[in-house]
Amino acid sequence: MENCKIYLKPGEEVRLNEGHPWVYSNEIKNIVGHIKTGDLAYVYSSKNVFVGKGYLNTNSKIFVRLLSRIENQPIDDAFFKDLIHKANQSRIDLGYRNSYRAFFGESDGIPGLIVDKYGEYLSIQILSLPIDERKELFIQLLVEEFNPLGIYERSDVAVRKKEGLPLFKGVVYGDVPEKIAIKENELDMRVDLINGQKTGFFLDQQDNHNAIKPYVKNKKVLDCFSNIGGFGLHAAYHGAKEVICLDISERATNDIMENAKINGLSQVSTKTVNVFDQLRDYVKDNVKFDVIVLDPPAFTKSKEKLDNAYQGYKEINLQALKLINDGGYLVTASCSSFMTPDLFLSMLQEAAVDSNKMVQMVEFRIQSKDHPARLGSEETLYLKLVVLRVLPKR
Amino acid sequence: MENCKIYLKPGEEVRLNEGHPWVYSNEIKNIVGHIKTGDLAYVYSSKNVFVGKGYLNTNSKIFVRLLSRIENQPIDDAFFKDLIHKANQSRIDLGYRNSYRAFFGESDGIPGLIVDKYGEYLSIQILSLPIDERKELFIQLLVEEFNPLGIYERSDVAVRKKEGLPLFKGVVYGDVPEKIAIKENELDMRVDLINGQKTGFFLDQQDNHNAIKPYVKNKKVLDCFSNIGGFGLHAAYHGAKEVICLDISERATNDIMENAKINGLSQVSTKTVNVFDQLRDYVKDNVKFDVIVLDPPAFTKSKEKLDNAYQGYKEINLQALKLINDGGYLVTASCSSFMTPDLFLSMLQEAAVDSNKMVQMVEFRIQSKDHPARLGSEETLYLKLVVLRVLPKR
Repeated sequence: MENCKIYLKPGEEVRLNEGHPWVYSNEIKNIVGHIKTGDLAYVYSSKNVFVGKGYLNTNSKIFVRLLSRIENQPIDDAFFKDLIHKANQSRIDLGYRNSYRAFFGESDGIPGLIVDKYGEYLSIQILSLPIDERKELFIQLLVEEFNPLGIYERSDVAVRKKEGLPLFKGVVYGDVPEKIAIKENELDMRVDLINGQKTGFFLDQQDNHNAIKPYVKNKKVLDCFSNIGGFGLHAAYHGAKEVICLDISERATNDIMENAKINGLSQVSTKTVNVFDQLRDYVKDNVKFDVIVLDPPAFTKSKEKLDNAYQGYKEINLQALKLINDGGYLVTASCSSFMTPDLFLSMLQEAAVDSNKMVQMVEFRIQSKDHPARLGSEETLYLKLVVLRVLPKR
Repeated sequence: MENCKIYLKPGEEVRLNEGHPWVYSNEIKNIVGHIKTGDLAYVYSSKNVFVGKGYLNTNSKIFVRLLSRIENQPIDDAFFKDLIHKANQSRIDLGYRNSYRAFFGESDGIPGLIVDKYGEYLSIQILSLPIDERKELFIQLLVEEFNPLGIYERSDVAVRKKEGLPLFKGVVYGDVPEKIAIKENELDMRVDLINGQKTGFFLDQQDNHNAIKPYVKNKKVLDCFSNIGGFGLHAAYHGAKEVICLDISERATNDIMENAKINGLSQVSTKTVNVFDQLRDYVKDNVKFDVIVLDPPAFTKSKEKLDNAYQGYKEINLQALKLINDGGYLVTASCSSFMTPDLFLSMLQEAAVDSNKMVQMVEFRIQSKDHPARLGSEETLYLKLVVLRVLPKR
């Protein structure tokens, strides 16, 4: 069978040649040959120069997701097996052992496939239709690489609809208990692969959770949007004298207390509240903290809503800055790729001015090393974390 | 004596209110009262709203460097003593002990004063005339805070001329031997306060030197522009099997070998070469490395020469990418504030495309935490360090 050939409009190859793996339908000039969703398509510039090849999906605005830039590269089981093994090995070489992102979609070379390792289990997410069609193959390859006790699929994300895929969650291999025990850095954590955020937990902050260490010894710490307590529990583990975790979900705050107990961290308490309201209440009541962590959910997943999101980020950072004792620290993150590093810093600067504080930036970090960002594919550099030392105006 | 009052042109207060401490002479509408270099000036917006106050220098384009945003804040010995103590204490609280930047000019609130602690000694740099006029006071305050064996002044930087100051280097308190023993992280280093780079050493990379740990175990490492070997020696300390350090200065390569010997790191060797030439030679000879560190001097200290500098950075990164084994790492830095984070990343992306490699960004770091960047003062966010995993095109 002849594979179909896709010819781009003039100039549309530039972004692809810079490393981005997505070919949008509106970038295509014409198609030669039979097209069928899930089949391999060969992509050429308007000048007939080979750009790359990958699976096509006629249901999606992302018409082709490139798998290879080499024209004669076979796209077969061995190709995928090698990519999965090399990605996993690179994490092991970096020192990850118990729990980590083992495969990160576009960044590791298979667009739409996410694999997270949680102790003896895997949690996977499939975000493209052609990969979903080959799910059995990928499960088999993952079993060969990881030999897990079970694999849970967390494909319950709205973006699947754009691919023409239904939402799905469930066990796809072996058995998966509701709560499983993992190690996050030095802490013992129970995570809930079935009901937890994303694939069960925010593994992308694992390195950053530990990076809070220099700031918290004997300090009073407020952890906002704490989910199951990654930052707050690490703060307590590294010697904070008091930690208050805020989350709107009672399931999350219950999980925090369970994990605090497991690790013997009795200085941790929780409030099940709306963080925006609670921060304003603390300001009104003149409550102070030495360290505040802001790790909110993405306030925007689209460029159109960026203005609102910017104001949302500014509001919580502004209120938090007011609550921090002189010389204390604000540990503040954004996981929206639309908040670029530059935008994030300018938002922080505005928040500092409006809160009448002077701030020093002592750290700028991105997502954990097991979530590598692919240069040329901005979506994969999504997490920024800045540590600010907060001083009074003088 | 009445202090002079400086009124800004309309709108010129905006940048200052955002945190920048420099008032340029061309931003001033009019001055009321007697002006004398070294005196305190009160700065107001065109609408007569107080902006800040600081010492003025009629010799400099930077006419006033703000010390305070509070109109009735006394600028006296106690004011400076408090700033110096709080800056030092913040470093100690972050875990710095033996050697660190103890005071970072604009960022810590005294524009033009740099204080680096090297073991039992201090190395200082004075970059503004009004601070130079008060040098005896600052030395006294530093002796009170640090009780050092000696203080060396490294005011041998060209930017002093713009302030109307001569270049100067010499002992200004106690005794300072030519080489002193310091701890950099866990390594024992001999540094040369008199002839070394900057104030004797690149303390701003101390945290980053240690951050090389996850990448180097049993690896073959090339450290380019290695100065006295910060990255290379840390790579060896963390288990690299072979480390080659390149520097054009024989003094530097001699110091590397001395420091390698002190730390028992026999896997380190050096070449006294031009790095640009050596990288091209390695490419020609098809020599390969697992990890390459690029920590070049600032290729530009002016915005005008940014284009050339960009090409210089791209050239070395491009050549280095070609030399790295599949799955290896490029650890690449720029210490020029004009290479903004966004520019630095786009340069790296271009270098990756031109070297026919695919790269993943696994870390983005800034200068060490003892060199805090002041938000609103871009000059103080000068050091970027990116770690790329280097893969073949596939």
